[in-house]
Amino acid sequence: MAELDLGEIREFLRGFAADRDWDQFHTPKNLAMALAGEAGELLEIFQWLTPEESSAIAGDPVRARALADELVDILQYVVRLADVAGVDLDAAFWAKFEENARRYPADEVRGSAEKRSG
Amino acid sequence: MAELDLGEIREFLRGFAADRDWDQFHTPKNLAMALAGEAGELLEIFQWLTPEESSAIAGDPVRARALADELVDILQYVVRLADVAGVDLDAAFWAKFEENARRYPADEVRGSAEKRSG
Amino acid sequence: MAELDLGEIREFLRGFAADRDWDQFHTPKNLAMALAGEAGELLEIFQWLTPEESSAIAGDPVRARALADELVDILQYVVRLADVAGVDLDAAFWAKFEENARRYPADEVRGSAEKRSG
Amino acid sequence: MAELDLGEIREFLRGFAADRDWDQFHTPKNLAMALAGEAGELLEIFQWLTPEESSAIAGDPVRARALADELVDILQYVVRLADVAGVDLDAAFWAKFEENARRYPADEVRGSAEKRSG
Repeated sequence: MAELDLGEIREFLRGFAADRDWDQFHTPKNLAMALAGEAGELLEIFQWLTPEESSAIAGDPVRARALADELVDILQYVVRLADVAGVDLDAAFWAKFEENARRYPADEVRGSAEKRSG
Repeated sequence: MAELDLGEIREFLRGFAADRDWDQFHTPKNLAMALAGEAGELLEIFQWLTPEESSAIAGDPVRARALADELVDILQYVVRLADVAGVDLDAAFWAKFEENARRYPADEVRGSAEKRSG
Repeated sequence: MAELDLGEIREFLRGFAADRDWDQFHTPKNLAMALAGEAGELLEIFQWLTPEESSAIAGDPVRARALADELVDILQYVVRLADVAGVDLDAAFWAKFEENARRYPADEVRGSAEKRSG
Repeated sequence: MAELDLGEIREFLRGFAADRDWDQFHTPKNLAMALAGEAGELLEIFQWLTPEESSAIAGDPVRARALADELVDILQYVVRLADVAGVDLDAAFWAKFEENARRYPADEVRGSAEKRSG
């Protein structure tokens, strides 16, 4: 069964903002700030954890719930910001996917984090 | 026609990381940092723009393209981080959606940014 | 009278961490995350404000206090991260200051935000 | 010998912005975004490093230089934002320092990252 798709999320968020007359606050600039603010909260979940503790987060219900909440908040701002700014996220995903496949050829970058950057 | 759904994105990213042996770098902690790093790049697009300039970004091809790239990067990290941390993003979306509908009743918060915070 | 200098801040923070046996958590990686997490909280103060409202923040005691708190948190993480990573912040400040003076000659960039980026 | 103090940094940055007519761009909102954008670049330095690699950054001249640059950028935005927003950073530092000493009594929080959060 299909999971939630980007178009469905977009429609829900449009309705949610319209019902509350929030379009006036949802400039791309403000939404970028809100998204990055949520990314900051995401960091706070992990900042003092070891890599191993972070990998075991599913076994910690309080943190796992906080993580799910933050990821949804960020996902919503990604979709909402794309919508108000006129970005076709679906098309952009595929364009980026092809670019990344060219930029990081599996045979050349295997196991290297260095190549990942830049 | 259905747009890209969360499950498809997840599968693509799994294959991409596996082909490159990047799973070793993709701890939740590292992915949270990478996501927030991309959110920082998103801010840089908008930081010196007025709200009006930010709303007109679709008419500026260079910035619009940079925005699309950053949003896709962030979307990918949201989905990848949910996957490696065992978060069901689809279920979390609906849970959060219901919570937000309760928390921000349309009749009470209409037109107020104050109520949006917290 | 001289204001607080970077060396004083560094010494206070060293003592504070040592007294609490927090050095073990204060890796550069963790401190970078903590700093960026505080930067996210800083964004939350301003995200729904107009530029004009943000400029008038001194007249809003609750927000002004929150801003002061976040700025101090960030300042502390800057100084602490420099300390544990072996960065001479004083020397780096002057190096950067000279670089910026060369990179943004007053006569060429006056009044332009474009030149400010990159 | 005294290191750079907050008042000196503030004066340098005032002159730098005035010479370039950048005050118009330096609203608190924009400066908060610029600061958080730099914090995002800071994360990118560390995102794929192990904690141990991050602690050894002084031995990696390229990364150590990038770190110093980012820390100075962030320091400058902290001081500049405090200045344009009317925050007395010196007073706020001492207020926060006393608050933290009360909030995290050395005897109670020793060696615990849990108590550090919140």
